[in-house]
Amino acid sequence: MSKIVTFGEVLMRLSTPGFSRFEQARQLDVTYAGGEANVASALAYWGHHTAHVTRFPDSPIGRSAAQYLHFHGVDISNIIYGGPRMAVYFLETGAALRASQIVYDRVNSSLATIDPSELNWDEILKDADWFHWAGITPALSQGAADACLAGIEAARRKGITVSGDIFYRANLWKYGKKPSDVLPALTAGTDIVIANRENISEIFGIEGKDFVESCVNLKAAFPQVSRVIDTKRTSISATHNLLRAYLWNGESVLETADIDINPIVDRVGGGDAFIAGLIHGLITFNDEQKALEFGVAASALKHTIEGDALISTIAEVEAIRQGETSGRIRR
Amino acid sequence: MSKIVTFGEVLMRLSTPGFSRFEQARQLDVTYAGGEANVASALAYWGHHTAHVTRFPDSPIGRSAAQYLHFHGVDISNIIYGGPRMAVYFLETGAALRASQIVYDRVNSSLATIDPSELNWDEILKDADWFHWAGITPALSQGAADACLAGIEAARRKGITVSGDIFYRANLWKYGKKPSDVLPALTAGTDIVIANRENISEIFGIEGKDFVESCVNLKAAFPQVSRVIDTKRTSISATHNLLRAYLWNGESVLETADIDINPIVDRVGGGDAFIAGLIHGLITFNDEQKALEFGVAASALKHTIEGDALISTIAEVEAIRQGETSGRIRR
Amino acid sequence: MSKIVTFGEVLMRLSTPGFSRFEQARQLDVTYAGGEANVASALAYWGHHTAHVTRFPDSPIGRSAAQYLHFHGVDISNIIYGGPRMAVYFLETGAALRASQIVYDRVNSSLATIDPSELNWDEILKDADWFHWAGITPALSQGAADACLAGIEAARRKGITVSGDIFYRANLWKYGKKPSDVLPALTAGTDIVIANRENISEIFGIEGKDFVESCVNLKAAFPQVSRVIDTKRTSISATHNLLRAYLWNGESVLETADIDINPIVDRVGGGDAFIAGLIHGLITFNDEQKALEFGVAASALKHTIEGDALISTIAEVEAIRQGETSGRIRR
Amino acid sequence: MSKIVTFGEVLMRLSTPGFSRFEQARQLDVTYAGGEANVASALAYWGHHTAHVTRFPDSPIGRSAAQYLHFHGVDISNIIYGGPRMAVYFLETGAALRASQIVYDRVNSSLATIDPSELNWDEILKDADWFHWAGITPALSQGAADACLAGIEAARRKGITVSGDIFYRANLWKYGKKPSDVLPALTAGTDIVIANRENISEIFGIEGKDFVESCVNLKAAFPQVSRVIDTKRTSISATHNLLRAYLWNGESVLETADIDINPIVDRVGGGDAFIAGLIHGLITFNDEQKALEFGVAASALKHTIEGDALISTIAEVEAIRQGETSGRIRR
Amino acid sequence: MSKIVTFGEVLMRLSTPGFSRFEQARQLDVTYAGGEANVASALAYWGHHTAHVTRFPDSPIGRSAAQYLHFHGVDISNIIYGGPRMAVYFLETGAALRASQIVYDRVNSSLATIDPSELNWDEILKDADWFHWAGITPALSQGAADACLAGIEAARRKGITVSGDIFYRANLWKYGKKPSDVLPALTAGTDIVIANRENISEIFGIEGKDFVESCVNLKAAFPQVSRVIDTKRTSISATHNLLRAYLWNGESVLETADIDINPIVDRVGGGDAFIAGLIHGLITFNDEQKALEFGVAASALKHTIEGDALISTIAEVEAIRQGETSGRIRR
Amino acid sequence: MSKIVTFGEVLMRLSTPGFSRFEQARQLDVTYAGGEANVASALAYWGHHTAHVTRFPDSPIGRSAAQYLHFHGVDISNIIYGGPRMAVYFLETGAALRASQIVYDRVNSSLATIDPSELNWDEILKDADWFHWAGITPALSQGAADACLAGIEAARRKGITVSGDIFYRANLWKYGKKPSDVLPALTAGTDIVIANRENISEIFGIEGKDFVESCVNLKAAFPQVSRVIDTKRTSISATHNLLRAYLWNGESVLETADIDINPIVDRVGGGDAFIAGLIHGLITFNDEQKALEFGVAASALKHTIEGDALISTIAEVEAIRQGETSGRIRR
Repeated sequence: MSKIVTFGEVLMRLSTPGFSRFEQARQLDVTYAGGEANVASALAYWGHHTAHVTRFPDSPIGRSAAQYLHFHGVDISNIIYGGPRMAVYFLETGAALRASQIVYDRVNSSLATIDPSELNWDEILKDADWFHWAGITPALSQGAADACLAGIEAARRKGITVSGDIFYRANLWKYGKKPSDVLPALTAGTDIVIANRENISEIFGIEGKDFVESCVNLKAAFPQVSRVIDTKRTSISATHNLLRAYLWNGESVLETADIDINPIVDRVGGGDAFIAGLIHGLITFNDEQKALEFGVAASALKHTIEGDALISTIAEVEAIRQGETSGRIRR
Repeated sequence: MSKIVTFGEVLMRLSTPGFSRFEQARQLDVTYAGGEANVASALAYWGHHTAHVTRFPDSPIGRSAAQYLHFHGVDISNIIYGGPRMAVYFLETGAALRASQIVYDRVNSSLATIDPSELNWDEILKDADWFHWAGITPALSQGAADACLAGIEAARRKGITVSGDIFYRANLWKYGKKPSDVLPALTAGTDIVIANRENISEIFGIEGKDFVESCVNLKAAFPQVSRVIDTKRTSISATHNLLRAYLWNGESVLETADIDINPIVDRVGGGDAFIAGLIHGLITFNDEQKALEFGVAASALKHTIEGDALISTIAEVEAIRQGETSGRIRR
Repeated sequence: MSKIVTFGEVLMRLSTPGFSRFEQARQLDVTYAGGEANVASALAYWGHHTAHVTRFPDSPIGRSAAQYLHFHGVDISNIIYGGPRMAVYFLETGAALRASQIVYDRVNSSLATIDPSELNWDEILKDADWFHWAGITPALSQGAADACLAGIEAARRKGITVSGDIFYRANLWKYGKKPSDVLPALTAGTDIVIANRENISEIFGIEGKDFVESCVNLKAAFPQVSRVIDTKRTSISATHNLLRAYLWNGESVLETADIDINPIVDRVGGGDAFIAGLIHGLITFNDEQKALEFGVAASALKHTIEGDALISTIAEVEAIRQGETSGRIRR
Repeated sequence: MSKIVTFGEVLMRLSTPGFSRFEQARQLDVTYAGGEANVASALAYWGHHTAHVTRFPDSPIGRSAAQYLHFHGVDISNIIYGGPRMAVYFLETGAALRASQIVYDRVNSSLATIDPSELNWDEILKDADWFHWAGITPALSQGAADACLAGIEAARRKGITVSGDIFYRANLWKYGKKPSDVLPALTAGTDIVIANRENISEIFGIEGKDFVESCVNLKAAFPQVSRVIDTKRTSISATHNLLRAYLWNGESVLETADIDINPIVDRVGGGDAFIAGLIHGLITFNDEQKALEFGVAASALKHTIEGDALISTIAEVEAIRQGETSGRIRR
Repeated sequence: MSKIVTFGEVLMRLSTPGFSRFEQARQLDVTYAGGEANVASALAYWGHHTAHVTRFPDSPIGRSAAQYLHFHGVDISNIIYGGPRMAVYFLETGAALRASQIVYDRVNSSLATIDPSELNWDEILKDADWFHWAGITPALSQGAADACLAGIEAARRKGITVSGDIFYRANLWKYGKKPSDVLPALTAGTDIVIANRENISEIFGIEGKDFVESCVNLKAAFPQVSRVIDTKRTSISATHNLLRAYLWNGESVLETADIDINPIVDRVGGGDAFIAGLIHGLITFNDEQKALEFGVAASALKHTIEGDALISTIAEVEAIRQGETSGRIRR
Repeated sequence: MSKIVTFGEVLMRLSTPGFSRFEQARQLDVTYAGGEANVASALAYWGHHTAHVTRFPDSPIGRSAAQYLHFHGVDISNIIYGGPRMAVYFLETGAALRASQIVYDRVNSSLATIDPSELNWDEILKDADWFHWAGITPALSQGAADACLAGIEAARRKGITVSGDIFYRANLWKYGKKPSDVLPALTAGTDIVIANRENISEIFGIEGKDFVESCVNLKAAFPQVSRVIDTKRTSISATHNLLRAYLWNGESVLETADIDINPIVDRVGGGDAFIAGLIHGLITFNDEQKALEFGVAASALKHTIEGDALISTIAEVEAIRQGETSGRIRR
């Protein structure tokens, strides 16, 4: 198995039990999660050595967060401690025609207040095979953006594969920079980009008449990019979705069939499980189509599991990839 | 926003957790609810000043009930205390082909034993814009029926709009009167009647070849009635329903499309949320069709929320009214 | 009502709450269940005198198990105490495309270590009308197989109807015997066999071009067999199944329509509820078709109830049998 | 072991979890309990055949109550069904200097509305060795009082030992009779009376300068009375009590040492566990002192157990009686 | 009853259930609380009109907080909405020799970022009898300090009694001001000061050889101050404390006896309940000694109640004040 | 910090919530624990590299157990998978005079069925500073005893300190060997023995007039033994204990004062926390008295924490060692 290093904010996730609204909840379920850490957790269950890099407050809350990642099998030895506070997100799970709601409280978090020199990337990435980052990190603060860039550059120097989930969330980016100021440098060092046409247009101003043309034009601007991956979610209701994915590999676009998920138990983290499955597939299989399908199967399975993290065996994901979705009891 | 006064029994609701049967439950979820109070709660969340009128035992249980209505934003200053006991209902939530069950225990409740003189309606209705009652109240006892009539008459005197949910439940009415003895006087003072053809026939002996004709004949008997509203529920299973509604305004019948609700989280209070939405719409919009649709959207949304009360913003209901039912996460 | 005696292992059932995975659970829901005991529990709710025969450790855990059966109305006066341990099974409930998982821990259980002489079947079956066994019991150990055979022979001597759920689970049978060594003698004393073509082939080496021919050939080998019953489950997902059943009565095959179950609350025990319904129907109705339908309705209803045991009234099952599956609230 | 028949109201007990106040509770723990039924439950755990007689509504709630008694091992075959409603009591558990609160809602219960002819005492008491009643039953209604008297008289005719917990609760007795109107006839048929000086004075107008003289004078008035038993509770706080008891046997007063209980887990039912222990002791031991101590030990143990019912083995109570109160782990 | 206005930050309180450590908790209990709001809640239960002034984020979390105060009966019409986030505190409850831990996360809260002009104190204090503030508010930010001073000055202009809980928490005060820069102006407008010798020395540099002399010297500096109140807690363990209080009224020091609290259910908010009881007493009784005792009784009672808020009746507190601390059940 | 390797069985711990009896529990709290693993967990929280060696079934249950140890920070890379089943223990927590009960179900566990050749001790103990075993392991089976001996011998060869908790539990040892057959060889390789006079007498037949003489005589027989440690628990009730400890170092006996623990939250694992504290102290401090006190403080703290494992910081234990047991809130 491989060593994969991920970098990004981990938040305390506080979710209302069952389908309770925020107003009703007198208990909140607490876990710790973040897009990149979710990727690490899923991969750890499949036997990879995954190490997550982040910054937590030096408090019982910060230590609880680290311990929670360790519970999922993630190497926490590169987590650093300091800064004012834990980022938090509040989740209310919807049902049927009622949408889920997420309220973020990440301002001034320990990661946002990082000084990039606190991370020694050459040490962190020793023996690593893969480095994964996402577009939320550079949106947090200049320090977080700089730390992310330093990680990508170190990976580049060591010849480690770099994947980036480029994902444009307009209501972040409050520190004075725009995505178009920051993301090009990060993307320039990235091999595998998770993005759709809209992202490519909005962030880089790169257009295309369809996904392929956008990818071709993206590669023209960023020659290191070898693959672009996109997922498509059809939302019938808050508890019933269909999922599929596309992979452009420089030559053609591969595509999967839809997987039908009904009912959804917990939709959050579905995209991260897709990336984990894709990384596992690209590392393990010599078959991009199978890797893409493994990603979608992993994502679909995540939707049936409480919490952000995909807890599964390779065999479970592989069975779904092969179409075993009838849910008969396993004894 | 407007001031709406509602009158009726509030019961302790004791429901089995999840899908447990009564025999299995070792905990019961407890809230406090009643058809008219549910209308008040939903309207309070939308910013209206709503005051509920009822009678509770002077005990920690009665005070807890009042406090619970206050939690929902309802003005509890007109609640009176006295009488022997809190009405209770037990709820077991069904799933798929298993029906939900409700067991009522309302005999001899504090409201049923009310002396109408305990309520000073002229004071209670000061500054009110709307008064809402339902057909269960006069079914409880002579005292409750008399108090309800006094409220309607006071509203009439003040020119306040009166709505009544005329709803025939045969297994109430145990104090020696029949619905046909009591409901005509109450209906005579009512502007907006929620009823279907069967109700109109069974209660008033007024027939019609269709809903419109029943409405026309009802108005002939009760000239104060300006609108008649009916809802239609298609029950595919305990957890999958379709909802629509009709409004006769003296000239024509307006009608909504069906809204599909799957899965239902908690069906109880769905009719009350419809009435709340309708009242809000009639007060706020100058558009009966939109008001009717707002009512159905509010009702549909209620089905996804635990407890009798609709906890929502106007924007959430309006989004559903406009067809946003795909349940995508709101961040 | 009748007296029905059942025999078989009862396990502590430890299930993860909601849809939690084993890794996530910090609480487990605990009940006590087993295929034959589940039949007894369901029949007890319908007013039959049902007595379950098994062996529990003489510990607070064993006593808790007996008490739990008593809670369901089952006569526990024939349970014997001794042996090393309680059998356990762990259940993780799946959703959508994720299958449920069961992990058994029944090795060396108190029933597996029974000495057949500990049971006085002539005393136990006094006044009984029906004796029910299942194929798991003889798979546990020689002692359990011998005890089961002794029960069947005693029932035979007394002219009591015997039903057997012949059910081939390859990963049991670890004490040196094969199903084909043991099950023929048990089947020889059985009137009503629950089995499908595959079971009949695998266990007895009896083939048939279809279900009917397999049944005919089975009866040729085991003349005491008067009826063979089979159920068919169509699994759309872990939470959506269809159910139907077949009954061969020596002359023809009766068949029911599918019942659609969506969502499933708890699928475990669905087969046992079918058998309970069938037994009730065969005892009570003079109509095999109705009995078969009652069995399927009971099974469908079980899928909406938490735990292995069907908790229901006859009226509830009968309503489903008659097609009342719309789930409207009962007040 | 013996057969003991108990008679009295069983209430649904709804208690706030932990130390929550009524206002705070969003769940209530539900069990079913009543003074006399608590005696039956405790004795059933010790191997006696105990049958409780009461009347429940013919509803899922009434059936759940019966099932709950069956769970405790109590014979429920003499329970009758009918009447309007289940009696309920609400419990809020205090701590330290905050007292526990109980709110009763027993008006118009199924037992209060009993017609004494519904019970065939000669049949019910067949093979019984002991009949137990308490002073709350005749306080409920004339029907309940008459049914209780009929039970005592039937027991008298059959030579069955009768015990009565005469206990004066002023806020019951609302049907027009006073304790002094009704209790003398019941006491006249009773062998063993649980009462203190104040009860004897208030109910019968029988005075005495101390407990012994009150007992002597009581026996003068009611010659059937052979023993009078009293308990004394020293309440240091809601969670710290001391318990002792006295037994007058016509000749002298026996007395136990105090047992110290800190912390109390659930104080309700402590008196009933005492009576159960006393009955067990008087039946089983030929030693009144030991029986009295067994009663106090049973009562003390009950204070450490959630719910009204004492769930214990004889060995556990006996160990406490012998002074093993150090609470070392048993493995 | 009186109208009391309180001002200060309200935090989301996230506490581990039972005695769980932060690392163990997978659920957190959630309420909303703050020192001054706790005073308002307690007084609302006693029938006073209490209005709390604070600033919440305009989000479902902010609205949930307001709704929670309304549940406690507090008037929320003066709460303003805006700013980045809800203040949070995390609580882990200790036991025996293990201390409770609190982790604050109040940086950059909606109240800390208030612009004082958002509050119209003349409007807010209309009809008020009492205004209460605490020393934490001016420690948050210049804006919060200025808003607090504006409130005190408005109260002063209107002749409203002002109480201030001057309480020095060194690890706040991060915005560049020291307590000695800010608190003198606030204290100058305050009638009733809650403080001890150490506070008076550390904050104002005013010394005294004992509490009386410190009070005399404080009044010399701040002539408006008419009373100084102090409480003394003896901490035997995390779950066993003793409480008493002192009141200097310009002439002499009144003092209460210790109240013993064992076990403590929830210690947080104990000081606020004392202030609420003191305010109630000073408003209601013409007896400072009784008011002081009522405060200590209220505080002791709070220690037995989950959450920050004292939920009680006046009668309950008065009973404890009179020494009824034996905790006998109230029926 | 040091590397400590521990070896022994880990059991699934299933405990009734709160103070529920086994009969009452419908949920069980689940963690994974074992004496030696508890030592490893406590030490991991203090920053030591701790690795636990055991054998789990290759199932989701076995994987969950390993994951749980990882959650506590324990290195799980030396755990091996195989064998039939997970050992289990059931715990019912007592209160006041009611003792806690433990029911073990460890027969035929994966560790008991180990083949000693599955463990490569030279590899496992690479870089280790300390090896810890306990007397339960050799009691399980010949394979477990042999594996334990192989571990001790490998540690001896490498000059690693060996500690052994010699602890005689008569109801284990069912595989044909007696403690006196097996434990001498294990003790011969052990430096630090946790044992009392009774253990030394029963296991080795070595007597002494007091603890010192027993220790002297033990060392005469086992010259490798350099220290003998004993703890003394005074049990006032199930929820109130006193703890102290003794250490014989070949020259004299050191002794601590009693620490008073009231109330106890969870007593299980208290002895293991003592050993962890002692090991930490002996490794870290150059002061045996302080090490012994640190052990007692760690043990006392454990009694206030749910579950078998001590979750704490060094600072928390050190504070208790220094007498800070008043439990004041830490903010």
